[in-house]
Formats: sequence, C-alpha cells, structure tokens
Amino acid sequence: MSKITLRSLDFPKWYLDIIRECDLAELSDVPGCMVIKPRGYALWETMQRILDGMFKATGHKNAYFPLFIPKSYLAKEAETIEGFAKECAVVTHHRLKLEDGKLIVDPDAKLAEELIIRPTSETIIWKTYKGWVQSYRDLPILINQWANVVRWEMRTRMFLRTAEFLWQEGHTAHRTCEEAEEEATRMINVYRTFAEDYMAMPVIVGRKTKGEKFPGAHHTYTIEAMLQDKKALQAGTSHHLGTTFAQAFDVHFLDSDGQRKPVWATSWGVSTRLIGALIMSHSDDKGLVLPPKMATTHLVIVPIWKNPEERAKVGEVAQSIADGVTAKGFVAYIDDREDKNPGWKFTDAERSGIPIRIEVGQRDLASGIVVLVRRDNMAKQQVAVGEAVDKVVSELGAMQREMLERARQFRQDNTREIGSIQELTEFLDNDGGFAEVFLDTSIDTDVRIRDLKSGRGRDKSLGATVRCILPSSATPGKCIVTGNSTTDRVIVAKAY
Amino acid sequence: MSKITLRSLDFPKWYLDIIRECDLAELSDVPGCMVIKPRGYALWETMQRILDGMFKATGHKNAYFPLFIPKSYLAKEAETIEGFAKECAVVTHHRLKLEDGKLIVDPDAKLAEELIIRPTSETIIWKTYKGWVQSYRDLPILINQWANVVRWEMRTRMFLRTAEFLWQEGHTAHRTCEEAEEEATRMINVYRTFAEDYMAMPVIVGRKTKGEKFPGAHHTYTIEAMLQDKKALQAGTSHHLGTTFAQAFDVHFLDSDGQRKPVWATSWGVSTRLIGALIMSHSDDKGLVLPPKMATTHLVIVPIWKNPEERAKVGEVAQSIADGVTAKGFVAYIDDREDKNPGWKFTDAERSGIPIRIEVGQRDLASGIVVLVRRDNMAKQQVAVGEAVDKVVSELGAMQREMLERARQFRQDNTREIGSIQELTEFLDNDGGFAEVFLDTSIDTDVRIRDLKSGRGRDKSLGATVRCILPSSATPGKCIVTGNSTTDRVIVAKAY
Repeated sequence: MSKITLRSLDFPKWYLDIIRECDLAELSDVPGCMVIKPRGYALWETMQRILDGMFKATGHKNAYFPLFIPKSYLAKEAETIEGFAKECAVVTHHRLKLEDGKLIVDPDAKLAEELIIRPTSETIIWKTYKGWVQSYRDLPILINQWANVVRWEMRTRMFLRTAEFLWQEGHTAHRTCEEAEEEATRMINVYRTFAEDYMAMPVIVGRKTKGEKFPGAHHTYTIEAMLQDKKALQAGTSHHLGTTFAQAFDVHFLDSDGQRKPVWATSWGVSTRLIGALIMSHSDDKGLVLPPKMATTHLVIVPIWKNPEERAKVGEVAQSIADGVTAKGFVAYIDDREDKNPGWKFTDAERSGIPIRIEVGQRDLASGIVVLVRRDNMAKQQVAVGEAVDKVVSELGAMQREMLERARQFRQDNTREIGSIQELTEFLDNDGGFAEVFLDTSIDTDVRIRDLKSGRGRDKSLGATVRCILPSSATPGKCIVTGNSTTDRVIVAKAY
Repeated sequence: MSKITLRSLDFPKWYLDIIRECDLAELSDVPGCMVIKPRGYALWETMQRILDGMFKATGHKNAYFPLFIPKSYLAKEAETIEGFAKECAVVTHHRLKLEDGKLIVDPDAKLAEELIIRPTSETIIWKTYKGWVQSYRDLPILINQWANVVRWEMRTRMFLRTAEFLWQEGHTAHRTCEEAEEEATRMINVYRTFAEDYMAMPVIVGRKTKGEKFPGAHHTYTIEAMLQDKKALQAGTSHHLGTTFAQAFDVHFLDSDGQRKPVWATSWGVSTRLIGALIMSHSDDKGLVLPPKMATTHLVIVPIWKNPEERAKVGEVAQSIADGVTAKGFVAYIDDREDKNPGWKFTDAERSGIPIRIEVGQRDLASGIVVLVRRDNMAKQQVAVGEAVDKVVSELGAMQREMLERARQFRQDNTREIGSIQELTEFLDNDGGFAEVFLDTSIDTDVRIRDLKSGRGRDKSLGATVRCILPSSATPGKCIVTGNSTTDRVIVAKAY
C-alpha cells in the first residue's frame, strides 16, 4: 500500500490519492473520461438504490430516452444554445471503412443531420412529451431517467467534472405554475434529505442567481455542501423551467375550462459528482470514511491467532458476532486471510472505510471481551462478547448521527457574516469558508463578486462565487457591492 | 382503447400493437432509436434486478467504462474491425457554434482522433485491464457493466434491433483456458436459468457456428428461444474469447511458474431485446401476458358496487384480500376508480398483463365468494373469501410453472427431425419451427443453409439460419448439405 498525502499538506493531491489507493476510479485514455472501478461504482449503486426509492415514493417512474439529440432540437431554444450547444460531442458519420489497410471514417456515410450526445435531455424529452399531452387529464407526467451524459470539459477533476458522467434527470410536466413550483421544491428537499440523512453531508438549500441558473429556467434550486477544505460544492439542482420548453416544442394542453395552455416543467438531477462530495466531506488521512448508510460492508472482524487451536477459538467468536450482525440486516466480513498480519488488515479496512472493526484476540477473549474501533473517530473500546452485536448496531447509528453533526459543526465554525468587500476578500484569502452577505440579486452583482481580485496580488482572482440566495432577511441590510439597502442574503464562497 | 390485431392475422402488426397499446415504447425522431416508456422500462428494471443478483451471487462486481472508444482501439483487433467497426456512430467534433444565426459544427473543433460510441466494450476494457494485471494474483477479474451501446442498424424492430439499446456486458479475465471456459458456460447457464425460471421462456443452449460467433471469439454460446410465430430469437450470448484481446492489447501476467502468459477472456450479454422476447413468448390477442415473476403488480382487485352501501362492503373485502396478498410479499392493486365501469377495468388489467384478477361483487359476497381470473388461461373460478389470499399465492406459483410448461410443449410440437434439404425447405415454407438436422459444422455449411431458396419462388430466400450447434450425437448421421457422415447436430430455423 502506498502513502496517502496529508490533507493539511495538499488537499487536491490527498483527494487523488484517496481515489487511487481506495481503488475507486482511474483516468482512461479517452479525453476527459474516467473508469469507475468496482469500489467506486458500489458507492454509486448505493446512491442509486436509495434515491430511486425516494423518487418512486414521490410518485415518479423511470423511463429511457435516446442518447442522441438532433442538432435542430438544440437550436429550438435560445438559452439551450447558449448553455449546452457549445462544448459537446458531435456525431457526424455512421460508418468506418478500411482503405489501404487503414481504418478511416467513410465520407459516404455522413449524416444528413448531426447528432449531439445528450448534455442533458430537456429537448428530446419535451419533443416526446408533445405526443403525450393533449388534455389536462394527461398531466402531470412524473418521469426520471438514469443515464450517461456528455459535456466536453477541458479541465476535468475525478468525479467532480468529467466529459462523460452518470446521473439521473427527472423531467416533469404540470398543469400549473404552482404545481411545477411544488415539484421543484419537493425534489430539492428529497436531495437535501438524501445528502443529510444518508450521506451525513449537511447542505444549504437556496436559489441560484440569474447568472448561475439553468439556461432557460425560471429559477434553479441548489443544495450546497461545504467540503473539508472549506470550499463549496453544488451537489444537486432542481429547476422550475416555467413554460420555456413547452413554448419551444409546442406542448400545450386543453384545460377543463376549454382553454389551450402551455405545460409547466421542472427538471432535477444529481450525478456521480456526489461520490466526490462524499469523499471530500468525511474521508481522512488514513483513507475513506463512509457514513454507515453509504457502506456496503458495515463491520470487519479481524480474528488474531498464533496457532490452529487459538484460530478455532477466535474464529468461532468472530463467526457468532458476524451472524448476529447479519441477522440485524447489516453486512459483516471476517478477514481471516492467512497471508496478511492483523496490522495490515487494520490498515486495509481503514482505507476502505468500513465503519466498524472488531478485533478478536486470544488474550482479550480470556477476559470475555473484544475490541471495537469506530472508523470515524478511531475510538477504541472494550466490549463484552455477549454485547458485541448490540454494540455494533448502536455504534453504527451513533456514527451516522455524529458524522452529520460534526460536519454541521465544521460548517458553522467556518461560516461568517460579512459586511463589506474588503472583509470578504480578507476572509476568503485567509480563513476561507462560507460568507453570509447582503447582496442585491436583482442586478448582476454575482458577476461583480466573480470578478473580485485577491488581496494577495494585483491580478490574482479571489475565486469567489455566489453559491446561493438564502431566504430573504426580515430586516434589510447593506448590499456589499452597491451599498444599497436590500433584504437579499446570499452565501459567497470559493467553489469546485 | 384501440383494437389489437389478431396474432393469427398479422403477427408483426400484433407485436407493434401490443407495444403501443400496452404503452411500452415508441419510436423517436432519432434514426433507429426508441423511447422506452415507464411500463416498458419497468420490465427492464425487473430483469436488471434479478440478473444483477445472479451476477453478484456468481462473484461479479459492477463497474463503468467510457462510452467513447478511440478509433485506433477498434483497429487493433482484425476481427473487431470486421464485426463492429463498420456501422457505428462516429464523433468527429467537440463543439457547435452560432454563425449568422445558424447552429453549425465548429470546423476548428475537430478531434485529433475520432471517437466511436461503443458497439461493445471489449477493446476499451482490455486496454484498461492491461494496467490491472501483472501477476496471477491479480486474476480472475470478474466485472459486469450496465450500459447503453450503439450499432448503426438500418432496419430496426422495436426492442429486438435498435441503433441504441440497453444491455449488460460481463468482461472477465482468467489465468487459464479452462477457467475461461468454465466462466463462459457458467454465464450461459445463468441466462438459461433466468429465461426459464423467471421469464418462463424455455431456451436451447448451444454453440454458434463459425460464421455466427462473436468476431474474434474462440466460440460463442447462445440461448435460443422459439417465439409464438415459431421463429427463433437469440436471447443471450456468452463468449469464450481465448487470448484474442490479451494479444491485441498486450495483457500478460507472470504466472507462479515464472512464465509470462497471455490472459484468457470471456464476455457475455443480454439486452432490452429480452423485452421483445418476453412479449412474443407469452402475450395474446388481449394484451400482455406476464409470468408472475416478471410482473410489478401481481393482483388487481375490482370491487363492483351500485351504491355507497355496497361500495363500503365490497371495498372492505377488497382491502382485506389486498392486505393479505401484500403480507405474502406480492403487489396488489385495488382498481376502485369511479369513472370506469368493471368491464373497462377488466380489459385494462388484461391488457397490462396483471397475472391475477379478483372481482368482488355484492351478489357473490352474499354467498361468501369472490371470482378469480388467471390472465394466462383466462380460467375463472369461484373462491371462498377466506381462502382468496392463499389461492392467489398458489395460482401465481402454478401460473409461473404452467407458462413455462406450455411454452416448452409449444416448442416440442414445433420441432422436427429433418433429414434433407428438400424436407427442410418444405418444413420452413409450410409449418415452420425448429428443424433438428445433422450438419457438418467443420466447414461453411451455415452459409449454404443461409443461401437456401424458398420452394415458393425462384428468387425468394428460405430465410433459414443455423441457430446453434447442439451436443454431438452419439451415433453419426448424414449431413444435409454435404451428405457426409457427421455427429454434428444443429437447429435450423427462421429467426429474428
């Protein structure tokens, strides 16, 4: 096993070390694309299983729409062109051929219309919905899709930003603006619940500014997480799309009052980016730290022996604890490999992020105890053999709660109310974290924030962005950009 | 609800009617691509859930590899060029731009190397495995991927053959030829088990002829199903790939004897084509017929009432049966919509393929009974209210078994031992079905079979293909093409 860089020394390098050493993913030769290895993919499968259940519980069904989007679809909606029709993968031909022993693109197989690999599916889905909606009785349509999408990113970062990524995209159609608004807020709250109750990652729910919202959306809700380096990460978004796509693709319905009306839309998505968020929220210098609800193995038992007789004894206890924990619905693994010593096994389990370790040794067993170690705080305790199963279950629950509390405390400790540009610059140049400021969001103040320079050098960008607009303040304050009075409050931070 | 064409009148049209009327899928505007609607996708989700469990139970893990394959990868393996590098989607550019108000492909954004949308992932996966394998200790690698793939098909058929389709592809790496062979046969048997025990679709397991095997494979195992029109459908394949891809991508390992050796490979896959197979195996002129293990709703209860008082009474009984069935682990649905009459609800449930219907009417209830109707044979029976739950459970089991038996009987009734080309032509021109023949597969007799003409017109093809090679016969027979003695037995049939 190789060394993992300390977070305090180089956070971005630590992140890449974790991905490599915990065997989560690797870069491929294909520009901007990664291979998600079994351990990384298992995290995605856990996320999919939980989220899919939450989507179905809120009335959604899964479907599947084509990977390809005709170029003319993208051209239908002006803001879509601006937002998505730029850096994308363009299919122009449908055949290769051998010529003089070389494999070339067959010039005779040029497509009449170029096809774009979906960067997101609003256009093709709304083209399809047109055939599904005639009357108000056909509404709402509540559909989700699990899919791969492609955005041609020049600067990639494992899990956080890759050319191809996996995600889910919900696309719903409604009779009224109010229903669409209700759906958009319902789904951002589903994401919040998932982030907090399962990933143990506290998030702030807010609206994006005009410059940061989804192209064509009325408004966009976001969940923003603070990672261990105090930077913000947009972890999921839910868009109230208004009637933008209904207008672009002529999707109207006959309402009960006999009027022909455009259909209201939402879309919402989270992606494999959540794996990056999970890593950067909790993991430490020893490796992965996973909240129990995200782990596929909850308990590793390491039996320690010197001879076959001892091995039989500790093995029996290990098995009985494993059986007891399995019966409670958790996954236990006994690491009784003969070619590895206990120290190696401890390190291996710590690196993999298994929430709880139990060491079963001959000497402890003589006193009727085993040693239990929690991965998040590395706290060691002695537990009576007969109480081990219950203790594992209660510690898993405690760990899930405490990881969320600890992350919440960390965010609170690194959030500051800021009253001026100068104070903001100093805060982000030095401590870093979330700045809560008054900002008049009715004008393009977000661009002014983005253009701020660091106090450390004339041309260095401060790297600050408005992450989200918070609920309005009861009492107005002074906009840090314009100096005018406003009730708009926002979070400003450096971000991924 | 529109009419469904009778199978006996026009089987292909019946198939399309079922897909449309049961709301499973529709064609999109994108050439060769379909939209899989929620009811169709639910079938795929059921298949995924069951198969994924079977893959994991046999030691496989899921991972994800890039959608894009550099053109040079395809060029590495000669048979891959022949088999897959022809009709495919080619990405040549990575940007669009607006010029004079028109959205065009940016000529400045031409890729240095064209990317192909994966038609199958052997090449990119073996390029990746090269980095994973050094020693025999790194083997085996047992990985599966759930993904979309694209093969530019000119003539498409819903679910059976579309340009983009969804599938799983297993890709394993082994130390020896024997291990690879064991894996390839293990997985074709997993597919057989799935087809028979879950889809109630009997299949014949055999090997493909040289002309029909996977490009570059040592040999290919297939499961072949007989559909209701007596045509064959290849429902899944498992390939022993030998060391073809190890040689092409230089994947070698240091064995325990100190020798550097090439790695042995298998790959295996099933796709959304199985949805087409499921429909054409069991469905009838009334709509979908689903084996209970493939259904998402197992029981529909239709309460029949004339007034609120009756409604309360039948509703109570309906609920108690639904609760009982749910407690047994099945999904029950009470169709108490007020704006539809019972007849409409019966037709709706029949069309959707819900395995069992229970009618709860006031008059029957006075005698303490309800009416139970099984979807597969439409048999009606009166059941005492107190026995309804147990009866539903036992009928679900019986239905699952009997659907398989019935399909097996159908295949047996339509399989014939055939001794000559003339007899084969007559059989396929008239009755149709599976012909079991002696055929010397050591030479290209499969091409001769494919080239056979119908007896009905000089230039009409018979449409016969060798579906698979059966286990060798104990006693030799006469090859129907060459007349030579051979122990090779094959199935010849018309096929999708």
